[in-house]
Amino acid sequence: MTRSLTILGATGSIGRSTADVVLAHRDEFRIEAVVGGRDAPALAKMARELGANFAALADERGGEALREALAGTGIASGAGPSAVLDAAERDADIVLAAISGTAGLAPTHAALKAGRRIALANKESLVSAGAAFMADARQRGVEIMPVDSEHNALDHALAAGLGRDVEKAVITASGGPFRSWTREAIAAAGAKEASAHPVWSMGSKINIDSATLMNKGLELIEAHHLFDLPEERLDVLVHPEAIVHGLVQWSDGAVTAGLALPDMKVPIANALRNQGRLTMDLPRLDLAAIGRLSFERPDEERFPCLSLAKAALRAGGAMPTILNAANEIAVESYMAGHIRFYDISEIVERVCSMFSGRRISAPATVADALGMDQEARQVTRQLIPTYAEATRP
Amino acid sequence: MTRSLTILGATGSIGRSTADVVLAHRDEFRIEAVVGGRDAPALAKMARELGANFAALADERGGEALREALAGTGIASGAGPSAVLDAAERDADIVLAAISGTAGLAPTHAALKAGRRIALANKESLVSAGAAFMADARQRGVEIMPVDSEHNALDHALAAGLGRDVEKAVITASGGPFRSWTREAIAAAGAKEASAHPVWSMGSKINIDSATLMNKGLELIEAHHLFDLPEERLDVLVHPEAIVHGLVQWSDGAVTAGLALPDMKVPIANALRNQGRLTMDLPRLDLAAIGRLSFERPDEERFPCLSLAKAALRAGGAMPTILNAANEIAVESYMAGHIRFYDISEIVERVCSMFSGRRISAPATVADALGMDQEARQVTRQLIPTYAEATRP
Repeated sequence: MTRSLTILGATGSIGRSTADVVLAHRDEFRIEAVVGGRDAPALAKMARELGANFAALADERGGEALREALAGTGIASGAGPSAVLDAAERDADIVLAAISGTAGLAPTHAALKAGRRIALANKESLVSAGAAFMADARQRGVEIMPVDSEHNALDHALAAGLGRDVEKAVITASGGPFRSWTREAIAAAGAKEASAHPVWSMGSKINIDSATLMNKGLELIEAHHLFDLPEERLDVLVHPEAIVHGLVQWSDGAVTAGLALPDMKVPIANALRNQGRLTMDLPRLDLAAIGRLSFERPDEERFPCLSLAKAALRAGGAMPTILNAANEIAVESYMAGHIRFYDISEIVERVCSMFSGRRISAPATVADALGMDQEARQVTRQLIPTYAEATRP
Repeated sequence: MTRSLTILGATGSIGRSTADVVLAHRDEFRIEAVVGGRDAPALAKMARELGANFAALADERGGEALREALAGTGIASGAGPSAVLDAAERDADIVLAAISGTAGLAPTHAALKAGRRIALANKESLVSAGAAFMADARQRGVEIMPVDSEHNALDHALAAGLGRDVEKAVITASGGPFRSWTREAIAAAGAKEASAHPVWSMGSKINIDSATLMNKGLELIEAHHLFDLPEERLDVLVHPEAIVHGLVQWSDGAVTAGLALPDMKVPIANALRNQGRLTMDLPRLDLAAIGRLSFERPDEERFPCLSLAKAALRAGGAMPTILNAANEIAVESYMAGHIRFYDISEIVERVCSMFSGRRISAPATVADALGMDQEARQVTRQLIPTYAEATRP
């Protein structure tokens, strides 16, 4: 039976991998809509390749180019925020939500409100607006399939038992480019070194988050919402080979782990499954060829962002929203060369503590989350110059 | 709700670990019967400790001692084969079947025929009589819970998906004491060196089987029957740390693995679960403390028993029964110092090839399996002296 799929963030790395999965299962999927950011030619090409009914570009200015590129194909198109929301709401069995950043929040939420099953790759939906997002999902009976390799691994490891028997869920971290560096060396590192991710090829912001381990902190927050587990039952393990993605420890001492070669097509295929799994023509995991898997505790001294994220998760309320917003602005400044590596965590910590007196409850709606996000970004931006000053030679 | 349990092989290593699990969950289990081999005092002690209703000793000569040791406790007792069968058939929710060797076959099968749920630790039920045993289980709707750490791990890894999506099930082997020895060094090794198992403390016959890797070969045969997978979808991986016990590779490239510290109480507790898992007060797996897990392909050149077992599984029919019987006799001779290490595999191979022309179909009943087992033992015994001669200095 053919299922219809809409891809939000179709021209990004996850979107392109999703297209590969779909093209390998032509008779199982029909593409309803594809949504891109700014690259009209790339989106048009994908829409033709996948035979989509509708293509939407977030950037209004690219609308004309998109329409021209699709002329004569019968594929309708639109541009701008409302076209993106239209695409998200169109009738589809599954919406793969892979627009990155807070920009992905509104369209992902629109798809959820429209009752679509969500294959979720947008972190902010859970990090910034997790409580509101999950409440709406529960209310509408919408299933959320995590696409992140870590959460996807946990999702199927958890299927091996009952929720009440879960003692702990653990996600792994490659450890980033600075895993074995001293704090001094890390402190002196520039954005270029921080961007060199050892395993995954991703966008540059997420590479910096991997270098600070904030990425894992945000994933803990996501795991909390996805699997309804408190901070003390979630953990991070550094695992440089990135083969084991998630582990579940049960009450009898047994552990179920989700493994795969680091290829996003595996969790994407898993998130797109329909009862049974898709058959993927990909290299199979060969542990004998890999030879060894190593594990170590994350060092929160050298990677304070992980502690900050855990603290935000424990504090609850709007704190994860604030943490995420402060981190985005700080990472932007670091990538622009305005602040140093450890300024990122210092700034995030300072912004969080500035808000902590206010005890703000978790944003009840996605709009509230976006408002809180904006406020925290504003506060962070005002703070940056103090650090940037200090960096000047 | 209290469940009643009978322990066959109560005074062995698995039986004692089972007693520990039960004693830690006093209000969840009521012990119906305990069965031991020869050690009347140990069996009486366990019967008292667990508050069993009935105790049976396989060795008739210990019956008097057992009765005396239980005098005044209200615990009934018996001795000899029929007392063991009585114990196996008594009304119980679960029968943990841990009598080792072919001696365990009849009582395990008796419990199955009586409709008891079986927590299975007796290898021979599946290796020698797998087809008959599983057919009877299916016919009576009896659930078989594997107690072996490898099969138990596979059992819950398989729960993470659908049977039709399984590409491969892999069990791990510690590699035994000779894992890194040359073939020449292994050829010269005595039974004492072969008995030094690096991870598990078990009986001595099974230690030799670990040294030859026949143990894993037999486990492949068990896995075939338990999970209905053909030989080409089963595999063995050498993993010296013995933390990952089983892995399932799915059609989308993802892998689910079952891990645990090497403590038999974990799979025993799992096999005794009732929907939910038991809570076990045992040390938890700490991968960061362990640091690394290593994996390698088994070397069938140095460990030909593994190839022989795979060949027997592929050949099907009575071949696994014959292989197992020949191996038992050969290992006995090796332990007695009559033959050399590689004589074990040579003898097994020769016995198997002697029977291979006959194309004997799988024993249809447990009695048939025992008959075939006896015949193969007889043939093997006649063969031993040729090898023993050669060993004489």
